[in-house]
Amino acid sequence: MTNELNPSKRLLMGPGPSDVHPRVLRAMTTPLLGHLDPEFLTLMNETKDLLKVVYQTENKLTIPMSGTGSAGMETVFVNLVEPGDKVIVGVNGLFGERMVDVAERCGAEVIQVTAPWGEIIEPASIEEALLQNPGTKLVAVVHAETSTGVMQPLKELSDIVHKHDALIVCDMVTAIGGIPTEIDKNEIDAAYSGTQKCLSAPPGLAPVTFNDRALKVIFNRKTKVQSWYLDLSMIQNYWNDERFYHHTAPITNVYSLREALRVIVEEGLENVFARHKQYGVALHAGLEAMGLKLLVKKEHRLFQLTSVLIPEGIDDVAVRKQLLSKYGLEIGGGLGALKGKVWRVGLMGYNATQTNVTQFLAALEDVLREQGYESEPGAGLRAANNTIKEQVTV
Amino acid sequence: MTNELNPSKRLLMGPGPSDVHPRVLRAMTTPLLGHLDPEFLTLMNETKDLLKVVYQTENKLTIPMSGTGSAGMETVFVNLVEPGDKVIVGVNGLFGERMVDVAERCGAEVIQVTAPWGEIIEPASIEEALLQNPGTKLVAVVHAETSTGVMQPLKELSDIVHKHDALIVCDMVTAIGGIPTEIDKNEIDAAYSGTQKCLSAPPGLAPVTFNDRALKVIFNRKTKVQSWYLDLSMIQNYWNDERFYHHTAPITNVYSLREALRVIVEEGLENVFARHKQYGVALHAGLEAMGLKLLVKKEHRLFQLTSVLIPEGIDDVAVRKQLLSKYGLEIGGGLGALKGKVWRVGLMGYNATQTNVTQFLAALEDVLREQGYESEPGAGLRAANNTIKEQVTV
Repeated sequence: MTNELNPSKRLLMGPGPSDVHPRVLRAMTTPLLGHLDPEFLTLMNETKDLLKVVYQTENKLTIPMSGTGSAGMETVFVNLVEPGDKVIVGVNGLFGERMVDVAERCGAEVIQVTAPWGEIIEPASIEEALLQNPGTKLVAVVHAETSTGVMQPLKELSDIVHKHDALIVCDMVTAIGGIPTEIDKNEIDAAYSGTQKCLSAPPGLAPVTFNDRALKVIFNRKTKVQSWYLDLSMIQNYWNDERFYHHTAPITNVYSLREALRVIVEEGLENVFARHKQYGVALHAGLEAMGLKLLVKKEHRLFQLTSVLIPEGIDDVAVRKQLLSKYGLEIGGGLGALKGKVWRVGLMGYNATQTNVTQFLAALEDVLREQGYESEPGAGLRAANNTIKEQVTV
Repeated sequence: MTNELNPSKRLLMGPGPSDVHPRVLRAMTTPLLGHLDPEFLTLMNETKDLLKVVYQTENKLTIPMSGTGSAGMETVFVNLVEPGDKVIVGVNGLFGERMVDVAERCGAEVIQVTAPWGEIIEPASIEEALLQNPGTKLVAVVHAETSTGVMQPLKELSDIVHKHDALIVCDMVTAIGGIPTEIDKNEIDAAYSGTQKCLSAPPGLAPVTFNDRALKVIFNRKTKVQSWYLDLSMIQNYWNDERFYHHTAPITNVYSLREALRVIVEEGLENVFARHKQYGVALHAGLEAMGLKLLVKKEHRLFQLTSVLIPEGIDDVAVRKQLLSKYGLEIGGGLGALKGKVWRVGLMGYNATQTNVTQFLAALEDVLREQGYESEPGAGLRAANNTIKEQVTV
């Protein structure tokens, strides 16, 4: 017989999933409604409205797709791209690389604009690519690169892309609920995200949003969308007033997303962003006070995800294993080009708290010391606390 | 402010989702583990092992895909089919039609073998199609057609398909956990299913299984799988010992599936099948004793889903609305060709009980009487009870 489910206690401070808010866990025990029950249709509308608040958009087509964040990525590309389309992708981390792969599988001619992992994509490089590739249909970048901790500035880029009559598409998996996405103000034409980062819900849904410019492209396609499961021309008829059955919505995941969004809207979006910033900056100060270096320069750092360079001679895996076994604390390793070179530390949603900054810095200091890396005792904690105090008194 | 989640009490006796087992709901409140946590990897292995028991297979590649049942359908086709491949689909209901659409989006040349909705696909018709279309790569049928309530016999069909060197693929969304699927005994090469029917878990995962013959086809593809999200050549490297990160697994959904499978294995697969049969047959007897006609003839009826012909002059929607408003009881309407012609009544998993048969027949008798359909008071209940008694004493 298989044992009862009884996992060890964890504090999830990696690149996601992060810990789920207790109210969200509780919402998931609610018995199901049918996917066409009038009461469920009301919950769907409420979820859309809450998503619009958190995405900072009025886009009518703002819905959760029935898959994880990567299904959101695929949704954007299979619906907007047709074979032969020119697509420019900004690649400065793993998720840019993934977009290239997904776009190519849609038959796109992909032009990569690269930057070193840990840096932003310069708007000027995108403009150059647009000039060299007239007729480009869309430009895709990652707003919050989960593999590096880089925050990509969007407004200037968006203006350039629109000047060249292309669409701008953003990966906002780690952005949503952590930093302002400003879909409307930034004039982002389409975006996708996930639930398991700053929304503090379990993975399983991919909130997407499309503005009218993007919808026009979808409705003027010459070919069928290659994915039946992600075909928005059908799915929108379930999420709008037609309520036409497409596939059975993941009811419980919708419950969880709705509750997660309620929690955020109750706290207030601006307060949520301020909290991420406050503790993110404190974490950065703490790490630097311990003599550690961060991968990303200050002006391009995310608050919700921080890449720390692994000090020379320190064993990546040993540190992460010990954090997990001794403290139940999970952080992430590096991916791709950064494998073995960085640790990734998340302070996402429900987890962005004073307690977690403290717990992490104290645990890291202890484990690093055991692994032979010395830092002034308590220096990280003091620096973090001072930074928090300064921000509060400002 | 959006209200607290507080849906009305429902008894879900439609075509799915069905009610979730309380143990499964409770499992979903368990805090997350990371998707690469050693403890989660153990839970994944256990989930695979339990799935193999319920699918009655030794197939190594037996895993839940991160989407609903329709994502399972798409998984099978995008991985097995390449542009230009000949695919025969048995179409005797909505889900056969959907397979045609999905296969065509993969570039397949689709040959439809049709039968009236409510009847099985005759193995002889498939053989004829195979003879007329040499080089056919795969044949797809629906084991338990959720739109009609038909149970498709598989063994003879499977032998014919293999004689012609093709693969046989089955939609088992409503079959799994309700009737024997016998993947190995029936030599089914690939199958997909959902969690929200007889497994009594919420929708959100699609358990799939592929045997070595199907895997060989996948590994000898000439083209890339058109879906990155559903590409098994990558996903299997996360679910096997390599543990290579692909996308963040929907942790909570995996918890829920594992618990649902534990519940089934604890009851015993044979007992679970016997229970579905016992109460399904009782429901059929009860409905017929009320003078109602069933769509499917006796030897091809599912036990877990029953299509009842709507009596002449009775308003489809009015009956369903009243069942919902007066009894909180959901049944399904007809789809496609059967819209307005049948009701679909589910007795799935946790819901296949004496109490629910009784509740449904009593409520239906009451509501039909209010709508002008008279039947002998209590005749349905008596017939159902007698049928249950007879089966127990046999």
